Amino acid sequence: MTAPILAVIGGGQLARMMAPAAARLGIQLRVLVEAADGSAAQVLQDAPVGAAKDETAVTALVRDAAALTFEHEHVDDEMLVALRTRGLSVQPSPEALIHAQDKIVMRRRLTELGVPCPRWLALAASPAAARAELDQFIAESEQNEAVVKTSRGGYDGKGVRVVASASDVADWIDAAAVGGPPLLVEEKVPFSRELAVLVVRNPSGESVTYDVVESIQRDGVCSEVIAPAPNLAPEIREQAGQIATTIADGLHVTGVLAVEMFEAPAHGGDTRLLVNELAMRPHNSGHWTIDGAATSQFEQHVRAVLDLPLGPTRPRTPWTVMVNVLGSQLDELTDVLPRVLRECPDARVELYGKQIRPGRKLGHVNVTGVDLVRVREQANRAAAILRGEE
Amino acid sequence: MTAPILAVIGGGQLARMMAPAAARLGIQLRVLVEAADGSAAQVLQDAPVGAAKDETAVTALVRDAAALTFEHEHVDDEMLVALRTRGLSVQPSPEALIHAQDKIVMRRRLTELGVPCPRWLALAASPAAARAELDQFIAESEQNEAVVKTSRGGYDGKGVRVVASASDVADWIDAAAVGGPPLLVEEKVPFSRELAVLVVRNPSGESVTYDVVESIQRDGVCSEVIAPAPNLAPEIREQAGQIATTIADGLHVTGVLAVEMFEAPAHGGDTRLLVNELAMRPHNSGHWTIDGAATSQFEQHVRAVLDLPLGPTRPRTPWTVMVNVLGSQLDELTDVLPRVLRECPDARVELYGKQIRPGRKLGHVNVTGVDLVRVREQANRAAAILRGEE
Repeated sequence: MTAPILAVIGGGQLARMMAPAAARLGIQLRVLVEAADGSAAQVLQDAPVGAAKDETAVTALVRDAAALTFEHEHVDDEMLVALRTRGLSVQPSPEALIHAQDKIVMRRRLTELGVPCPRWLALAASPAAARAELDQFIAESEQNEAVVKTSRGGYDGKGVRVVASASDVADWIDAAAVGGPPLLVEEKVPFSRELAVLVVRNPSGESVTYDVVESIQRDGVCSEVIAPAPNLAPEIREQAGQIATTIADGLHVTGVLAVEMFEAPAHGGDTRLLVNELAMRPHNSGHWTIDGAATSQFEQHVRAVLDLPLGPTRPRTPWTVMVNVLGSQLDELTDVLPRVLRECPDARVELYGKQIRPGRKLGHVNVTGVDLVRVREQANRAAAILRGEE
Repeated sequence: MTAPILAVIGGGQLARMMAPAAARLGIQLRVLVEAADGSAAQVLQDAPVGAAKDETAVTALVRDAAALTFEHEHVDDEMLVALRTRGLSVQPSPEALIHAQDKIVMRRRLTELGVPCPRWLALAASPAAARAELDQFIAESEQNEAVVKTSRGGYDGKGVRVVASASDVADWIDAAAVGGPPLLVEEKVPFSRELAVLVVRNPSGESVTYDVVESIQRDGVCSEVIAPAPNLAPEIREQAGQIATTIADGLHVTGVLAVEMFEAPAHGGDTRLLVNELAMRPHNSGHWTIDGAATSQFEQHVRAVLDLPLGPTRPRTPWTVMVNVLGSQLDELTDVLPRVLRECPDARVELYGKQIRPGRKLGHVNVTGVDLVRVREQANRAAAILRGEE
């Protein structure tokens, strides 16, 4: 049997978790890893080492591949276009992926599509003009602050700064004038909570969405996900799904698209949704699907980018809670496996095989069940043991 | 992070399916595969090639390993004892494993433990004595037939023959006299169906059992498994669990133990259970647990042989049906993935990456749900498409 080959750029935990999904379907995953002992490389037979933007490495990666996909957005668009011209199926396409790479392009397109976004403005390249625009933007805000983002290169809270005046981002403004990433400013939304919707779409245009989840952030990084989002008004749930589908269709996304949204108070006691960020790959807000949904986001991504039919997304239990293990005081997470499995019997522990560093995503825990309080408690406790805090 | 290493002898689909369970827990699986492109080798980073009984290969396999386990029983006991003497944790132990390797040893021990077995007899080595014993055994049977088995080397219906007289196994009887495997004869049980119970036990003595399942055989090979076994009397279910636990404890099994049983009519309209076969490893009758139980048999095996706490075994849905893909008329199973995923949306397809050969176990399909008729229908239909029959 000759397995179809799916090439993946990026060898972190997302590629690692694609591995069992691909193996199960008889698909050979070939992952370009940054280092021979990287997270995905530890569990894959076919894991060449190379940089994501190294044309020689990527050319070797895609040899005989049925498709190329990604576990992060830090790729070279021109190289992708060239590969596609030579007949390779690149999923998502560079034209879709740009919206996950460049926040100005994303905001512009979402605005065109009528998708609700925070008020935003792309700042001028000239430092003097940028400073004036930014200070005026803040002056016109209901808050005394605004959020400045680099259009490119940010993730997990990096490339994002809350500022009260242009002087708070003088360094970025100066850098933008001399080849650094262009900047945009966004309204600081007084949100009540953050939600996320996963939508999966294949090149044939079939798409499915998962339940809306609540995503709890700590220091700009996803810390806990509750699926489904508790106490969500039915019309907001529906609206969230429609927004996600509108974006997936409008941007011709293929694979998993994660749409992160703010739920914010609106006039008259209502709530409104505003899109915060997009990711075009399996996403932290979807790890709950491994144990909590009929088909995991990783299997869906593999299916979607190979243009296979998508799977059912229905939840398998009333509640699933995912808690990240962000950093640890332990020397080895596996040292506490006996304890965590004994004390938290419903914890589905997933470790990424990474070196321990402060704040690093080292693993996650899923717990499913019918009693949300107990489910959250057990998931948080298991993660705390793995962080060496209990 | 330095992952604990679990060494496995045997690189077929069982080792392949241990891979995601190990990876998830941050355990490094190192599998001794028969060929570089074998089922498990395709999905593992650490898969040295070698024969199960090659001492040099096994010695290299277990270097720095936390434990050694198996995906089949065709291993060299003396070598295992020697490895253990040098400090290696061998799970299950050679003393336990012998009961899955030698059917005479197994029958003798189960009889000592008071476990209900079909009437049985170890045949003499001398051909004349063996023939006489066998013909007398058949004469004393309620049937006009009996089941002759080679004590060693059989699996999936091989090494088993239903005979009406000693002349039907003249070849085996002659072989047994000159170094071939000793033979035993067993009553041909007029069973109503076959059941199986999985029990998992770790070296600390903790054990858990799964729901009793019905196992439907075709040509001596497991074809379909229904979990739980439909219409099972509560007292039979309890008895089945007790038998399995008695065996696991009595034989000091570690890891997964599959106990295959006959459910047979007894006097007065009752039914009785008789133990048919044992396997000490993840087993085909437990593939349903991947999608149907809170913890899969593969994760349980990994946990058990590393003496980690065991996971909950409760079912995740009312019914799970597993159907094997035994051979296929297709050139490539992945060719029909679009069709099977579209027409059988609830099918959880698992392909083993093996060359297609008649009758070979190439993969399986799990379907979970609340309506057993529909669940069976969809699982069988998906498997039929993969066999190229629909």
